[in-house]
Amino acid sequence: MTDARHGLTITEVRLTPVLVADPPLLNTQGVHQPYIPRLIIEVTTEGGATGLGETYGDTAYLALAQPLAGALIGRSVTDLNGLPELAAEVCGDPPGATGAGAVDVGGLRGVRTAGKLRLSVLSGFEVACLDAWGRTTGLPVHALLGGKVRDRVEFSAYLFYRWAEHPGGRGEPDDWGAALDPAGVVAQARRFADTHGFTSFKLKGGVFPPDEEIAAVRALAAEFPGRPLRLDPNGAWSVPTSCRVADELADVLEYLEDPTSGTAGMAEVAAALRGARPGASGRAGLPLATNMCVTTFDEIAEAFARDAVQIVLADHHYWGGLRNTRELAAVCRTFGVGLSMHSNTHLGISLAAMTQVAATVPHLDHACDSHYPWQTEDVLTERIGFSDGRVDVSDAPGLGITLDRDRLAALHRRWLADDGGLRDRDDAAAMRHADPGWVTPATPRW
Amino acid sequence: MTDARHGLTITEVRLTPVLVADPPLLNTQGVHQPYIPRLIIEVTTEGGATGLGETYGDTAYLALAQPLAGALIGRSVTDLNGLPELAAEVCGDPPGATGAGAVDVGGLRGVRTAGKLRLSVLSGFEVACLDAWGRTTGLPVHALLGGKVRDRVEFSAYLFYRWAEHPGGRGEPDDWGAALDPAGVVAQARRFADTHGFTSFKLKGGVFPPDEEIAAVRALAAEFPGRPLRLDPNGAWSVPTSCRVADELADVLEYLEDPTSGTAGMAEVAAALRGARPGASGRAGLPLATNMCVTTFDEIAEAFARDAVQIVLADHHYWGGLRNTRELAAVCRTFGVGLSMHSNTHLGISLAAMTQVAATVPHLDHACDSHYPWQTEDVLTERIGFSDGRVDVSDAPGLGITLDRDRLAALHRRWLADDGGLRDRDDAAAMRHADPGWVTPATPRW
Repeated sequence: MTDARHGLTITEVRLTPVLVADPPLLNTQGVHQPYIPRLIIEVTTEGGATGLGETYGDTAYLALAQPLAGALIGRSVTDLNGLPELAAEVCGDPPGATGAGAVDVGGLRGVRTAGKLRLSVLSGFEVACLDAWGRTTGLPVHALLGGKVRDRVEFSAYLFYRWAEHPGGRGEPDDWGAALDPAGVVAQARRFADTHGFTSFKLKGGVFPPDEEIAAVRALAAEFPGRPLRLDPNGAWSVPTSCRVADELADVLEYLEDPTSGTAGMAEVAAALRGARPGASGRAGLPLATNMCVTTFDEIAEAFARDAVQIVLADHHYWGGLRNTRELAAVCRTFGVGLSMHSNTHLGISLAAMTQVAATVPHLDHACDSHYPWQTEDVLTERIGFSDGRVDVSDAPGLGITLDRDRLAALHRRWLADDGGLRDRDDAAAMRHADPGWVTPATPRW
Repeated sequence: MTDARHGLTITEVRLTPVLVADPPLLNTQGVHQPYIPRLIIEVTTEGGATGLGETYGDTAYLALAQPLAGALIGRSVTDLNGLPELAAEVCGDPPGATGAGAVDVGGLRGVRTAGKLRLSVLSGFEVACLDAWGRTTGLPVHALLGGKVRDRVEFSAYLFYRWAEHPGGRGEPDDWGAALDPAGVVAQARRFADTHGFTSFKLKGGVFPPDEEIAAVRALAAEFPGRPLRLDPNGAWSVPTSCRVADELADVLEYLEDPTSGTAGMAEVAAALRGARPGASGRAGLPLATNMCVTTFDEIAEAFARDAVQIVLADHHYWGGLRNTRELAAVCRTFGVGLSMHSNTHLGISLAAMTQVAATVPHLDHACDSHYPWQTEDVLTERIGFSDGRVDVSDAPGLGITLDRDRLAALHRRWLADDGGLRDRDDAAAMRHADPGWVTPATPRW
């Protein structure tokens, strides 16, 4: 019996930063760079199992991941409740990476704090530990989380305004072409639907003036009548603009995501939507979702007390792992707040982790978001597939995925070789390749 | 690898109701009966491990436990997230056991509902599944919950007004003698402190007029200066009485537990305590704790919104198991509400379970309650010991305890043989053996 426990002791932690091709997807901050840094984490146990995790690969995250990796040696992969305290002990604040002036990866998660950085780093280690634990004991990660309550997890098509190629033809080409108007958005949605079977659709907005984005959503509604639609301008709108868009689209939107920035503004919009006279407008009852004003446990109490958000978009990279995501789900359920799932650019390790945890949460009420279909590269031997817009929940040990070391090495070589300064995601810098005068727009933009 | 999972499949579930000797402990409802029903649950897996669980053994609980036991066969012990839905499916509402007129075991948990009954039954199965899982894989239950963050769990001495013996000399004798006044309470506390090393003390109140109980707490404060003290009248007081007691004892109480019944009344008391002018009274800041007005997730939102309680006393039998207890802890932490642990009469299986889960919760801020030191009987080969008021967290597989089949059989024979109607806990009925005219006091009693 003692042997079993020893078999779960961590003997090695390997960190491999990679650069992954990313298409020129537009958002209110700018555009995705040709490559995006991710960090691949491997946790090996005395029993010989190696678990996989994935998180942000930006400089500040790497700086925290290194000391934490060292501190994990000799601990058990089951020893997860102590990780936050360990991280607080061994990870100093990366200089210059936090504070009122610093923003998160992509600029879309509010003010960057040391706590948020640590949770995101932790999340990758937690997933790797769970994967290693599952591989050692023959159990899927969902079993380690108390078991799945569904066999497939639904995802939405994540639609973006985009260019046909990166400025100057940098990066890896693809055959999607541009999508800069309603017709382009509908064509993109149609291709996603045909290829992966998605039946719900999210448009990343905040790129064009609201009327253009309203027209795009209307076009989606005409093409996919009755299907759940979402629009997410990443907090780019004022409260009045948010209310106007809600008025215009309430009859076709499943929810409106982060129309305006900050809990106070979201609360104003939510109150206005609740107060809308039934009959005079369809907007009464349109819920607001967020992955911007509620991204940590500390931000919940105020937002819930003000009824600022009706759906929280969980993200295990934000919240500190799969177990914290389940705790977030419990908090939301307790307060009658809905739950769905947010995504930044990620690879198959994180998609597998998202699928495993999503399978265990009974009241996951909405299709999850995932950028994965946009990623042509991965570090797995086999890509994870969608059918009917859903990912099958693996019952294989751990996450049920296999690392392709050659691909990992290739993407790591790209990271090592890169001399273009691509160490950190910076959508505004990428935008300046097309528009040298571009600065991150102040909010509200409209 | 597949074999490992098959080894966790449940092949047998055994339910053994027992009657356990209980001393004549007084509370506001009446007095403990000479024997109390408990249900011992054994879950055996294909791998040959048998896990232990324990919950209430009253008729309504047994009626729910039987169909659930049958429905578990063929499932995995890891398949815990699906248990609530399974229980809702297979367990009908026990006739007459629920509704506005029915109250819970001991009458101290508010209105009995089918949902509360199911969660309490579930909790015993969940613990047994975790124990079996741990025994199979060589891991302590705390590891299955993400690992311990402490090596010992602190408990408080649970002081009761009591008689020397049950009315008519029924039940099993003990040598504690009566405790019906401050001197008796202090002597009891001293014996607990000397025997088990307890350094915090809780007095079950609501038995005598408040001034007598205030005097008892004052006597404890004099005997154990600076030690954390608590008083719990189980909701017996009016709002003004609650505030008066708080005024009298604020300088020596760690918290005041359920002074009055219901969330509305608790909110009134809490508001009065918050509003007390600093300096004019020591009561400002005295927190209120509860295991009565917040006993399910459904009761949290209102209580927290009204700031009615500052500490929730978790009880895995109430909340549906160890994993739900952790979710409750997460909810409390998120809203800045403290956490401690409640106890009804229980045996060593539940003490082991309480200790395992308590070990995993970082912000468990107060010593837990346990009736265990009052129980002279157990179903384990070895009693669990307290030293310095603390229980060592076992790192042995599962709960780290061993069932004594002979003792279990003996306590089951008592249950089988009992012809005195001791199938359900009923403190008022027990009281009528001493006072034939006794009826459960209406609240507020004072």
